Amino acid sequence: MIPYGIYVMTTKGSDGAIAAATVNWVTQTSFNPPLIAVGVKADSGAYAIATEAGTFALNMLGKGQQGMAFGFFKPVEVDGNKVSGEVFTAGPETGSPILEAAQASVECKIVEVVKLGDHHIVVGEVVGANVAREPEGRADAAILEMKELGDNVFYGG
Amino acid sequence: MIPYGIYVMTTKGSDGAIAAATVNWVTQTSFNPPLIAVGVKADSGAYAIATEAGTFALNMLGKGQQGMAFGFFKPVEVDGNKVSGEVFTAGPETGSPILEAAQASVECKIVEVVKLGDHHIVVGEVVGANVAREPEGRADAAILEMKELGDNVFYGG
Repeated sequence: MIPYGIYVMTTKGSDGAIAAATVNWVTQTSFNPPLIAVGVKADSGAYAIATEAGTFALNMLGKGQQGMAFGFFKPVEVDGNKVSGEVFTAGPETGSPILEAAQASVECKIVEVVKLGDHHIVVGEVVGANVAREPEGRADAAILEMKELGDNVFYGG
Repeated sequence: MIPYGIYVMTTKGSDGAIAAATVNWVTQTSFNPPLIAVGVKADSGAYAIATEAGTFALNMLGKGQQGMAFGFFKPVEVDGNKVSGEVFTAGPETGSPILEAAQASVECKIVEVVKLGDHHIVVGEVVGANVAREPEGRADAAILEMKELGDNVFYGG
């Protein structure tokens, strides 16, 4: 019954490799310092690169951005300043790709990884935040939600 | 921008003390084994009792149960089989209070606690689940949501 928003987790390895994957298992876990926890598939490229880099970004998708969500279910293709067709810039705090089309993003420094289960819990301290387009009304009502991805979609990656 | 459902976390200490508190920082983090992570205020009674007991339950509130959510923002009062006015039974797997009026509940055994920040991350393995009232349609559309608690409520506890 847990409701979820939809995010694209991005990261850049020390060798320049870029990962970007749709995720939904996300929650804030502390105000001070600001911490968030993300359940990331332990055998995924995003997990491998993020834990090596020690940093990642979460790009918040807005209403109507189902296409982006499904695009990042697939393996990424990097072409210049585009990842899987989406323009990105390097986040100022971490270098993690910030997707230009995302509604907002946070950059995180990994402070803990809980290695239990098929997904591990990546705990990040928020070290930067950017709101590309100010949402109207409540921010938590502006995000693309899991239940908007289709009647048979219950997990985003 | 992270959207949240609303839950009442319950637990029973080895001395019989009962805690029940509204929480919202919840996400699943693994399919196998089924794990969930909950951000719990580190200086709260619910945190102290749950970590001592090693078990807890999450009671999922349904649409319209705002009153219960606000009721468990306050200190609990236990009176026989009621906690803060809500009838409960002992969960079969953990003894944690299961609220009769909740839409569904899961019982968890704590497998890890990440002690970072003002709230700690309590990681529980789901060892029992009960659906009191089968939701119509998607389960993740049936839960009471943070944004339904009022225009100025952004955090549940």
